[in-house]
Amino acid sequence: MVLKTFPYSITMKSARLKDLGERKVIEHLLTLAYRDPSEIMGYDDISLVRLKEDLYLALKVDSMSFSADIPHTMDYHSVGWKLVTMVISDFAAKGVAPLGMLISLIAPADSLLGEIEDIYRGVREACEYYKVYLWGGDLGEGLELVLNCFVVGTTKNHRIPTRSGARVGDLVFTTGYFGLTTLAYLILLEGVKVRDSKTRNLAIKALFRPIARLREGLTLVQRGLVNASIDSSDGLSESLHEIASRSKVKIVIEKPPIHPRARRVLADLNLDPVYETLYRGGEEYEIVFTVPEEKVPLLRKLGLELKSKFLYIGRVEKGSGVVLLREGREERVERKGWEHFK
Amino acid sequence: MVLKTFPYSITMKSARLKDLGERKVIEHLLTLAYRDPSEIMGYDDISLVRLKEDLYLALKVDSMSFSADIPHTMDYHSVGWKLVTMVISDFAAKGVAPLGMLISLIAPADSLLGEIEDIYRGVREACEYYKVYLWGGDLGEGLELVLNCFVVGTTKNHRIPTRSGARVGDLVFTTGYFGLTTLAYLILLEGVKVRDSKTRNLAIKALFRPIARLREGLTLVQRGLVNASIDSSDGLSESLHEIASRSKVKIVIEKPPIHPRARRVLADLNLDPVYETLYRGGEEYEIVFTVPEEKVPLLRKLGLELKSKFLYIGRVEKGSGVVLLREGREERVERKGWEHFK
Repeated sequence: MVLKTFPYSITMKSARLKDLGERKVIEHLLTLAYRDPSEIMGYDDISLVRLKEDLYLALKVDSMSFSADIPHTMDYHSVGWKLVTMVISDFAAKGVAPLGMLISLIAPADSLLGEIEDIYRGVREACEYYKVYLWGGDLGEGLELVLNCFVVGTTKNHRIPTRSGARVGDLVFTTGYFGLTTLAYLILLEGVKVRDSKTRNLAIKALFRPIARLREGLTLVQRGLVNASIDSSDGLSESLHEIASRSKVKIVIEKPPIHPRARRVLADLNLDPVYETLYRGGEEYEIVFTVPEEKVPLLRKLGLELKSKFLYIGRVEKGSGVVLLREGREERVERKGWEHFK
Repeated sequence: MVLKTFPYSITMKSARLKDLGERKVIEHLLTLAYRDPSEIMGYDDISLVRLKEDLYLALKVDSMSFSADIPHTMDYHSVGWKLVTMVISDFAAKGVAPLGMLISLIAPADSLLGEIEDIYRGVREACEYYKVYLWGGDLGEGLELVLNCFVVGTTKNHRIPTRSGARVGDLVFTTGYFGLTTLAYLILLEGVKVRDSKTRNLAIKALFRPIARLREGLTLVQRGLVNASIDSSDGLSESLHEIASRSKVKIVIEKPPIHPRARRVLADLNLDPVYETLYRGGEEYEIVFTVPEEKVPLLRKLGLELKSKFLYIGRVEKGSGVVLLREGREERVERKGWEHFK
């Protein structure tokens, strides 16, 4: 026992975060936590804790740092908007209504008040849009801008869809298209020129002013249509792999949900739209979810009711991993997505 | 109207945070918040929101950045312990039991896993000590270590003591002595040598491993002994001024609660123990509170029961500000305390 764990633990301790990646580090740190036996979600989009027989508390925090998470061309108003949207999107994926939030902001001492104010105006716009209160927060000093948004909600329903709830035979849907943020990254980080200005604007807007699918998520879960769900902010491939591995099933992608404009521009750039959308997107804030086949007619009806696009992308089968059906053949989809420290 | 507000707003926008200080910036940002009419504390140690007729949600976030809040000689285990203690202390001051927390950590990619692990071991030790769960959190990347601790609790009692509840005739108490952290700052930041090793160790321990007065705070409020209270982490002078100004009363300090060892060492260093303790301490995490005179016998009884020191320091009078009674004369106490960006 000692001989087996001792060298492992030494190696881990002296490993650097960049050699491990965000997810491995989190899994390791979780083993150290003083856990609540009443917390029922485990490693998922939100935490859910029982307060009383019929009342559960839902919680989530997300952070952004200037150096790692904020493109340098992004305006401060959008930073505030996106900070809130990131967390609301996790509540949307689980169908739990958020109530309010605390915002914690660390800023360098020579920041302009106008910059900080713009962030808070973005936060306010998002609070009003999603109808979520700002209850309080903290303000501190540091080397760079770091923002944290901590959102709390309550629910009577403890049958919240998890990442592990997908069943063989389920169909897989998304609440919208992917691929515009891929384009935005190419434009902002790699200097790619996109001539079609409407597409370029849509791409930048998708990255700077994303919209969480709160109404869709709340209604989908309220009507009991969802077996498994995840917020797709870490990318489409990563989101599908997460559902497949936690649910111990295989996901077969038949129709990758690529935005028509992104598909066209990516193809013009001699890039493979499917590959780019699966692996090099992220921060789309769409819900990826699975629905039992018999409930699909109800889903279609709901789509018309909400005027929302629920895009069919594939199905859940026995097995493991994620594959893409191309010209009748199954191609393995790698697990690649956004991960800090990598 | 326009002529009056236009130049003001331009000046504020182009002001830097360091020209304004933390409190002015917070007060300005609060005007931008999408506020919850059911939030009943206002600007106080915690936020308190009504969930149902008889159920309130209590929330607080505190942050620490490596560059501004963590002495460079502080070990990572203590960082984790103190992060939790900081927030629990706010719950203690309001007499609300904390239930659980989320921890958000931003770290540079070349941090050692062992360092991060040590922080989480400190968090775990504190969680076990205060009996508060770690429900979840976030891990991200940035230029320096930034930690956030979000704590949530619930209470049936909405008669939580505020900072504004002090009444003329109340007596003012603290849950313990001040001054050891003053010594610790002198030792760590100004290289002052303290020969008495027991006092030196006590001072460093007070700064690195403070203990929130959770049991005392919960019992004091449960028994209805407190009119006004505040967590003293911003320093004794600032805490007393905050109660005085929010309650619109004057506070007269008769017996500054100076730790006997700190008093001796400060005097040996030719420093004024009263001045140093009032103005140059902070992060003591004692509760400063006011008690109606007729309830003082009950407070004394509780002190014996809990084996806790409730130190009488002064009284609440008509007027404003804070004064110190020295040799029968009232000296004005300035409002000086810990503030970011200053």
